[in-house]
Amino acid sequence: IIVAANKILAERRSTPVARLIKRPLLGRHVLVTSGPTHEPIDPVRYIANRSSGKQGHAIARAAAGLGARVTLVTGPVALPDPQGVDVVHVETAQEMFRAVERNLPADVAVFAAAVADWRTAAEAQQKLKKSGDKPSLDLVENPDILGNVGKLRSGRPLLVIGFAAETANVAGEAARKRKSKGADWIVANDVSAPTGTFGGDSNTVRLVTADSAEDWPPLSKDEVALRLMQRAAEHLGRGAAAAE
Amino acid sequence: IIVAANKILAERRSTPVARLIKRPLLGRHVLVTSGPTHEPIDPVRYIANRSSGKQGHAIARAAAGLGARVTLVTGPVALPDPQGVDVVHVETAQEMFRAVERNLPADVAVFAAAVADWRTAAEAQQKLKKSGDKPSLDLVENPDILGNVGKLRSGRPLLVIGFAAETANVAGEAARKRKSKGADWIVANDVSAPTGTFGGDSNTVRLVTADSAEDWPPLSKDEVALRLMQRAAEHLGRGAAAAE
Repeated sequence: IIVAANKILAERRSTPVARLIKRPLLGRHVLVTSGPTHEPIDPVRYIANRSSGKQGHAIARAAAGLGARVTLVTGPVALPDPQGVDVVHVETAQEMFRAVERNLPADVAVFAAAVADWRTAAEAQQKLKKSGDKPSLDLVENPDILGNVGKLRSGRPLLVIGFAAETANVAGEAARKRKSKGADWIVANDVSAPTGTFGGDSNTVRLVTADSAEDWPPLSKDEVALRLMQRAAEHLGRGAAAAE
Repeated sequence: IIVAANKILAERRSTPVARLIKRPLLGRHVLVTSGPTHEPIDPVRYIANRSSGKQGHAIARAAAGLGARVTLVTGPVALPDPQGVDVVHVETAQEMFRAVERNLPADVAVFAAAVADWRTAAEAQQKLKKSGDKPSLDLVENPDILGNVGKLRSGRPLLVIGFAAETANVAGEAARKRKSKGADWIVANDVSAPTGTFGGDSNTVRLVTADSAEDWPPLSKDEVALRLMQRAAEHLGRGAAAAE
């Protein structure tokens, strides 16, 4: 009986372990935002940004490949929906925020979208016309999606990862952003035009955590995504081990 | 000798005539603008509009199909370059204006692009940061490409065609725009969201000329393009006949 019981226990142990080696995010829910947001000015004009969504979509694919159930909340991009991923299409920052709230809880939340910081104070109902006046657009701040989720008191994801797309002082801004947003990790990169990061297929990032900052070599966005999700799986694994 | 001469003359006449039936824009240069323009706010943000470029690109294809040499000046679109057309890619209204100037003279100029009326007064060199202030964007008017070409004193195209994308009072705005811009024809359409014109494959237009206004039935953008270029060819043919 003892032999049989040990055998059953061994089988029970080995099966999930073997599975976890290849699919370490099995049973986890990963929420990813991707792409730009578009903030309407009037029925035909909007404020946009140069995010292609390639990095965020790659993270969603990588997480799914590692076994996670993945929800991808994406702004307007020219990319196909990744297979095996629940995709929610949004246009504005406010819509993205609501979609994120609706799709929590998650074990890991990755905010890779380039969310517009501002929207126009009032969207015009008709197309704005030229006039003699020098026009100006009044802007108001959009909801801070990363900051809101990072500081959740209940239902906060185990791991909250933000992105910092900077054009100057990348390292300093990333460390500052990690603290101010309540994020666990910040993936920082330089998106100034000469780097070709926005729209391009490769990315040179710095991963800032509570106790380290690592500069990763230039990698494809797929490789950045896979490394990041493997690290996320290790982090969750350590958390589970520590809790036992 | 007379018989031989007549035969040669007949051949000379019949060949171009036969050719002109199928390729009535042969020997003509048609300049077309298409797509939106993007006006940078800072290194990552810009103001855009919902033009897909489908109508403008269709016009370039139709003109080439009717035998014209075609120059297409296009803003950022997700469309392939039409075959057999010289394509100039631009991003901002100012770049589009310079590309149009460089590619004149033309027999026909079609301004189908949705050019941004305004650009930011000063593009920020670094990414703008959130601050406690309520921000606003100061805007300045962009060059009026249609108006400038419509009012050219020398080297004006024989036929200047503008587009009026309106969300209200389409007929009134089109007639006003035709006069104020010095255009020969205005192709007016309603681009309010329910019509699905922006981004869609069909278009319901009103052609406003000096002495008529025609409402065309709903047509594909390719059909609108072909009709418009056939009408342009007829117009040029009448002009050539009148000049003889």
